[in-house]
Amino acid sequence: MALISPSRRLRRTPFSDGVEAAGVKAFTVYNHMLLPTVFRSVEEDYRHLKDAVQVWDVACERQVELRGPDASRLMQMLTPRDLRSMLPGQCYYVPIVDETGGMLNDPVAVKLAEDRWWISIADSDLLYWVKGLAYGFRLDVLVDEPDVSPLAVQGPKADDLMARVFGDAVRDIRFFRYKMLDFQGRSLAVARSGYSRQGGFEIYVDGSDLGMPLWNALMEAGKDLDVHAGCPNLIERIEGGLLSFGNDMTDDNTPHECGLGKFCNTQTAIGCVGRDALLRVAQEGPIRQIRAIEIHGDRVPSCDRPWPLMSGDTQVGQVTSAAYSPDFGTNVAIGMVRMTHWEEGTDLDVVLPGEVRAAQVWQTFWV
Amino acid sequence: MALISPSRRLRRTPFSDGVEAAGVKAFTVYNHMLLPTVFRSVEEDYRHLKDAVQVWDVACERQVELRGPDASRLMQMLTPRDLRSMLPGQCYYVPIVDETGGMLNDPVAVKLAEDRWWISIADSDLLYWVKGLAYGFRLDVLVDEPDVSPLAVQGPKADDLMARVFGDAVRDIRFFRYKMLDFQGRSLAVARSGYSRQGGFEIYVDGSDLGMPLWNALMEAGKDLDVHAGCPNLIERIEGGLLSFGNDMTDDNTPHECGLGKFCNTQTAIGCVGRDALLRVAQEGPIRQIRAIEIHGDRVPSCDRPWPLMSGDTQVGQVTSAAYSPDFGTNVAIGMVRMTHWEEGTDLDVVLPGEVRAAQVWQTFWV
Repeated sequence: MALISPSRRLRRTPFSDGVEAAGVKAFTVYNHMLLPTVFRSVEEDYRHLKDAVQVWDVACERQVELRGPDASRLMQMLTPRDLRSMLPGQCYYVPIVDETGGMLNDPVAVKLAEDRWWISIADSDLLYWVKGLAYGFRLDVLVDEPDVSPLAVQGPKADDLMARVFGDAVRDIRFFRYKMLDFQGRSLAVARSGYSRQGGFEIYVDGSDLGMPLWNALMEAGKDLDVHAGCPNLIERIEGGLLSFGNDMTDDNTPHECGLGKFCNTQTAIGCVGRDALLRVAQEGPIRQIRAIEIHGDRVPSCDRPWPLMSGDTQVGQVTSAAYSPDFGTNVAIGMVRMTHWEEGTDLDVVLPGEVRAAQVWQTFWV
Repeated sequence: MALISPSRRLRRTPFSDGVEAAGVKAFTVYNHMLLPTVFRSVEEDYRHLKDAVQVWDVACERQVELRGPDASRLMQMLTPRDLRSMLPGQCYYVPIVDETGGMLNDPVAVKLAEDRWWISIADSDLLYWVKGLAYGFRLDVLVDEPDVSPLAVQGPKADDLMARVFGDAVRDIRFFRYKMLDFQGRSLAVARSGYSRQGGFEIYVDGSDLGMPLWNALMEAGKDLDVHAGCPNLIERIEGGLLSFGNDMTDDNTPHECGLGKFCNTQTAIGCVGRDALLRVAQEGPIRQIRAIEIHGDRVPSCDRPWPLMSGDTQVGQVTSAAYSPDFGTNVAIGMVRMTHWEEGTDLDVVLPGEVRAAQVWQTFWV
């Protein structure tokens, strides 16, 4: 692996001092911001995430804030998910599509009030698309990136740790709901959500000055719970089928290809700019789709480019994320496969740099 | 420095195999793509860039293509630079602004035809803003990212090297003009431009399959010219006052604050969405502006966050790029300074992590 060159353009976060003190070994860049990827090793971090509790600097999940009388109208323009019944206090995972139905981002929308939303974004400048639409349609809405940085607490002991810092009220927060809870006299949105299957919370830290005090409070409170700095874990998220925008999908893909049809209500999502383009695929289904893929043989290298999936001499898909899973004793992967070859148990070949491996399509992920 | 974790999301380029074979040591991430930052060392690369000729993988300067009857109208909506007299064959450096006059990108616009443009972008998803505007204003224009990857040839021997591969016609290309020249039977736009002050070209490689053949042809042809793989050089670009979007400016800044007023014709750029917002500042001038800053004392560390510029206890600006210059024997830097303190020779303090240094405002960069 090569080094990463520091610059202001690769923005530090309110938690970077804590991340560095915890001995971070590697980063990726996400929304022009540093995102830790390894502390001890990817496999040690994985084991610990499944056994204990971790604090994650996911400040790179930047917020796009919509505020004003047209905020809810604009939010519905962005997504084929029907938002009419959504209430303040709820979070929705929302595919965001352009006028052709192509995915532009797959964020979590946080409804703060009828006229105020946060969109907690994946890795693309969604702000630019939203600003362009707001301006083009002359909407009465402010669109901005506020100083709000999510900090995640993930793992089986997340409830216990969070209760020590925010009180027992955290235990009652339902999945993809948030409560406003106090920390040092400031009210923060605390949601039961996060980019792992181990359970936990995301705290929307509203004001960079609160970053290190909160980081330190969690680390201090969790000593006997074996709390450790962590980060989204490649192995765990592949096992769990958690997609990554830019890795497993791009603007070439519809939500249906990404297996996100369950988050689309294309018929009733009136106002969504991609609605016309998606109506047909919503009814008929896609011709290729995300699948869990097992890759046989030794531990695979880093998946730094799409690996073609072959049936004989014909390419029928590609793998875009892969890692060796200690718990399942095999290489787990995420790929996109044509419908002719997406049935469970289909045997395929996957072309890695310099070698070909046997692979198999699974119907479900390893959860 | 920490490591960078490979993933498909940090896209490889058509030249990555060549970059790796040349022994790249570090990368940054730019437009979701790998951009090399160091080959031998930043200082060795700097010396060699000024003495010989380098081939740079700048594929991360992605293109936003505008095609269709409204392409020129849309292009003018993006920028306060008056494009009416621009002809096919020309390249313009164009500040791109939103409706508030804030910078969204500082790309080079390449006019291919009256109804076809490439925008060779800095590090932000300008595609999303342009698509949002095109959709909102119902323009008849296709907006897309084509498979076009710039390869730069920079340094005093660039003309000689390029002539060996593309013929002597390259010598006649004027600054910020391009010609269509043949390589292996394919016609490529070759512009006299690039992100250094050492002279050279940018080749718009139209089709990834041409990447390594062109890379290898240049390396082969330039052996006796001491050609080497290189990359935009931090020291050289600061000496030369070449700004970096995301480092030296963000959407908080107007073009005038960035010293880009000379590329604005706000009065006559009819149609620019930021025109109303910029008219006043275009007339009155900004209240803070980019300046060359000399930082005294030992070699400064990497500028990975804004360093406050102080006059006594008052913050009057910030430094956003800095490096030690062997040729000038001092630390050269780029900063933004309030008009009360931007006069040449003004003495300031700059606050680095853990120390305060004496600094001085210069009127011009080190060119």
